[in-house]
Amino acid sequence: MKVRRSNRLVDMTRYLMEHPRSLVSLKFFGERYDSAKSSISEDLSIIRHTFHSWGMGRLETIPGASGGAILTPFYSKENAERAIADLVTAVSDDTRLLPGDYVYLSDLIGRPDILRRVGRLIATQYVDKDVDVIMTVETKGIPIAQSAAMYLNKPFVIVRNSSHITEGPTVSVNYVSGSVKRIKKMELSRRTLSAGANVVVVDDFMKGGGTLNGMKSLIEEFDANLVGMTVLAEGEVSGKRLVNNCTSLIKVNAVDDEKKTIQAGPGSFIKDVFEKE
Amino acid sequence: MKVRRSNRLVDMTRYLMEHPRSLVSLKFFGERYDSAKSSISEDLSIIRHTFHSWGMGRLETIPGASGGAILTPFYSKENAERAIADLVTAVSDDTRLLPGDYVYLSDLIGRPDILRRVGRLIATQYVDKDVDVIMTVETKGIPIAQSAAMYLNKPFVIVRNSSHITEGPTVSVNYVSGSVKRIKKMELSRRTLSAGANVVVVDDFMKGGGTLNGMKSLIEEFDANLVGMTVLAEGEVSGKRLVNNCTSLIKVNAVDDEKKTIQAGPGSFIKDVFEKE
Repeated sequence: MKVRRSNRLVDMTRYLMEHPRSLVSLKFFGERYDSAKSSISEDLSIIRHTFHSWGMGRLETIPGASGGAILTPFYSKENAERAIADLVTAVSDDTRLLPGDYVYLSDLIGRPDILRRVGRLIATQYVDKDVDVIMTVETKGIPIAQSAAMYLNKPFVIVRNSSHITEGPTVSVNYVSGSVKRIKKMELSRRTLSAGANVVVVDDFMKGGGTLNGMKSLIEEFDANLVGMTVLAEGEVSGKRLVNNCTSLIKVNAVDDEKKTIQAGPGSFIKDVFEKE
Repeated sequence: MKVRRSNRLVDMTRYLMEHPRSLVSLKFFGERYDSAKSSISEDLSIIRHTFHSWGMGRLETIPGASGGAILTPFYSKENAERAIADLVTAVSDDTRLLPGDYVYLSDLIGRPDILRRVGRLIATQYVDKDVDVIMTVETKGIPIAQSAAMYLNKPFVIVRNSSHITEGPTVSVNYVSGSVKRIKKMELSRRTLSAGANVVVVDDFMKGGGTLNGMKSLIEEFDANLVGMTVLAEGEVSGKRLVNNCTSLIKVNAVDDEKKTIQAGPGSFIKDVFEKE
């Protein structure tokens, strides 16, 4: 039965949002709604215009027999600035200060509203890049990786700190954990990553950059390509970082004077993503 | 500037999908689109009708001055059966068999298409329940918890196997790991869970049920309420399970005869969710 435009628009928007960065064919929509391709094309231009005018993504239409539409969710610069300001507000809370100048962030990486912002921000950074897989290290990097994966519509892989029988054959590397200057080992299941894959590395927090550097070595071991690195939060570090091309959404510092406070602010994201030559 | 109906429908669908199970006021939409509340009400009934007829969720409208709309994503029984069949197909692959009759599932819990199905299925199970928080144990339960959290729009908390300095004060319990009959310890950060909270417990895999039982004890320690338990996959177990009220999306067994194969099929979900009195 023929579906009316108003119902088509609602269902197409839902469908495209649940299949981001994927080509959905005109034929598929035409059959789903028992509607002519010309009507579907008009629907798509309404959807394109709406996402564009609210700064929440772009819809590309590919013409021809094998054509269709691809919805790529992202933030306009203005929306990205607002999302980052929301993250800064969420983290600015002195009760987050733990002994040893650690900052408690575990609640944030379990909040859907925060994770939607994080995912869409990371998708914005890699909007014009070929990404095959997102990589992170257990445990607190996982929610960041999954958020990015949902918006990029690509799988994520979890690097583990020790061997697990349910992972099958693995490849491991040693790395220097920057903050404690200790040699550690990380490993990844052999079958999760193919040679030549384009990898985005993400994590919750970067201090010295040792963990990120370990993942970089692991990518080399698999003959894969590093596309970029992004962390939710960047902390203060004394001395040199082990990586120098990682984008941070926010910066967080524990200020250890008499009254202990937390200083939070925007990270390098806006500069790295919107203000590059 | 007044926004036209067709553009309103696209943007409202997007907005409601990104704020599931939340009351969005008519006033908010009215101001966002510079449109009369009567027009917004008509838009909402188009959205309600569309989600209903595709079996993908329900839209409730709350009348009155403080009223608005709540989109609750779920699957109709037919869609749920199809989603579970997709999961069974994805897991039915003899190369997943690992030594010791373990089954390799790590790739599935990193795939956005799988995780969307898992999240919407779990949201379907708890569609009429008050849920405050989703609980899981590191590492492979996390993607399941996050998927459920995104559709239920509630935070998730991660129970850890050992203490971490960045978690602050914790509460711990000992539990018997069913498969290896060993006493283990799990712990949760004090500040992640409040007394009286309604908790849904999820995990990737259940064999003896020891880990789920441990999380049950932890919920008691926090004086919180267990709403229900759901796992992606249930394995075969010799002897009695430690929990008897856990819903599984699929069943997976390693068949250890001459040619090693994997047997997968639907779990208890359809019966538990759609065929209860």
